[in-house]
Amino acid sequence: MTISMHSASVPIFTTMLGNLSHFIDKATADAQARKYDTNVLANSRLAPDMLPFTRQVLIACDAAKLCVARIGGIEAPKFEDTETTLPELKARIQKTLDFLATVQAAQLDGTEARDITFAVGRDRTRTMTGEAYLKHWALPNFFFHVTTAYAILRHNGVPLGKTDYLAGNTAS
Amino acid sequence: MTISMHSASVPIFTTMLGNLSHFIDKATADAQARKYDTNVLANSRLAPDMLPFTRQVLIACDAAKLCVARIGGIEAPKFEDTETTLPELKARIQKTLDFLATVQAAQLDGTEARDITFAVGRDRTRTMTGEAYLKHWALPNFFFHVTTAYAILRHNGVPLGKTDYLAGNTAS
Repeated sequence: MTISMHSASVPIFTTMLGNLSHFIDKATADAQARKYDTNVLANSRLAPDMLPFTRQVLIACDAAKLCVARIGGIEAPKFEDTETTLPELKARIQKTLDFLATVQAAQLDGTEARDITFAVGRDRTRTMTGEAYLKHWALPNFFFHVTTAYAILRHNGVPLGKTDYLAGNTAS
Repeated sequence: MTISMHSASVPIFTTMLGNLSHFIDKATADAQARKYDTNVLANSRLAPDMLPFTRQVLIACDAAKLCVARIGGIEAPKFEDTETTLPELKARIQKTLDFLATVQAAQLDGTEARDITFAVGRDRTRTMTGEAYLKHWALPNFFFHVTTAYAILRHNGVPLGKTDYLAGNTAS
């Protein structure tokens, strides 16, 4: 069984979005234990000109959703980006997972050489083959936002470790 | 042309390690412009119990090297982890890139179902198939350390943006 466009995308996104949801559970527990408002975490940033935790989560969700939609030529559900609280972010992750679960391998497989054109910034587009787009754009971008979300929580003292990042709530 | 174990590993590691080296160039330029010692960046962390920039870079390098070595059953060169300065970190990245360039596709391809056993922590091992190891362990771990290195620099005000992360010194 060789790696396919589906097997190199949907299972990775699904696992890591589950882990991201697990980070939020641990963040919520930490806020209760240390008696602070979880909105502080939701609005936290690593630098004044970086995006806050809420946006890191929303972009990670959309990176997964849009990657799969673009590769497969699938119309993705539109979400309004109104989430501001940790429970709302968990719900957004779940909606994204629900969409990913509807995507069949046959919709993505065999698209390695298909041209994918996507928006970059406000007024430009970029075109890459499906395989290059997945490997050199969509996956790096997705991991960037999941890791930055993790880093924001760790920077604020949420007790997360590498096994939470790699294995989520299945971590031993 | 379907995705192979080589095409899903070596080109991604090579591109992103090049981008990581580019982050260091920008960090060096920022230190010169703002007149601070680059060792401050080398030793910077996002949390007191997270690893500093130096270790993030070394682990990213080793994540790439060890992934390829394990999948292919290749003996990887051993490096001593003595790097402490930004120029030394750039040299370590280059040594890793030099090793990756020696790896032939035929050494990695067809290893999707091969059992890979690797150390986890000090006294445990874990076994995964080659494909699962690449997708759910090696790549997430690699991106974690590249992104955390980026985040440490951004947290310290180094003027990096997403195009530096995704496209390195080819960013327009």
